[in-house]
Amino acid sequence: MTAANLDLMFHALADPGRRTMVDRLSRGSASVSQLAEPLDMSLPAVVQHLQVLESAGLVKTEKIGRVRSCTLDTTAMSQAERWINDRRIQWERRLDRLGDFLEQTKDD
Amino acid sequence: MTAANLDLMFHALADPGRRTMVDRLSRGSASVSQLAEPLDMSLPAVVQHLQVLESAGLVKTEKIGRVRSCTLDTTAMSQAERWINDRRIQWERRLDRLGDFLEQTKDD
Repeated sequence: MTAANLDLMFHALADPGRRTMVDRLSRGSASVSQLAEPLDMSLPAVVQHLQVLESAGLVKTEKIGRVRSCTLDTTAMSQAERWINDRRIQWERRLDRLGDFLEQTKDD
Repeated sequence: MTAANLDLMFHALADPGRRTMVDRLSRGSASVSQLAEPLDMSLPAVVQHLQVLESAGLVKTEKIGRVRSCTLDTTAMSQAERWINDRRIQWERRLDRLGDFLEQTKDD
């Protein structure tokens, strides 16, 4: 995943409305109007947020007849997750090694 | 973690310079000038990015003598990670159940 992709991904997740949409889609595909239902915003605003999620690779949409169906794409999600995880684990291992070192060098 | 905290957290990670700082800190605490070293930006700009990371709870800073030491706080990181992970797992389980259902109902 490139830096630009991570920018788009984290930016997409930084909005509560968009996170509500991702949360809804994690429980199954939905039409645009189903996505809009729990949100206090206009349909054009929902479509705009959807485009941000699509650009970030978080959501795929497909037009079936007159309805646009939205589906979560977890590939991009797992890449963002891994970026955070790798740094967290690295830091926690470092703390563990520091703890071991202090343990070994303490006065008896 | 509140919605506002997740907003701040994901917003903080949506910038490549700030991610470089988090990446550096995952390998050990650093002073502000050490953080600035690999970045092509002024020290005031680095301080500003650092404040965004602090507000998001990603980094803690402590003034020791004349040097400000910066340390990663992985608690907030693991909360952002969990938010993504919960949704990803929910969707993948759903896909698994769908696969099982299709398997059970297919023509022999």
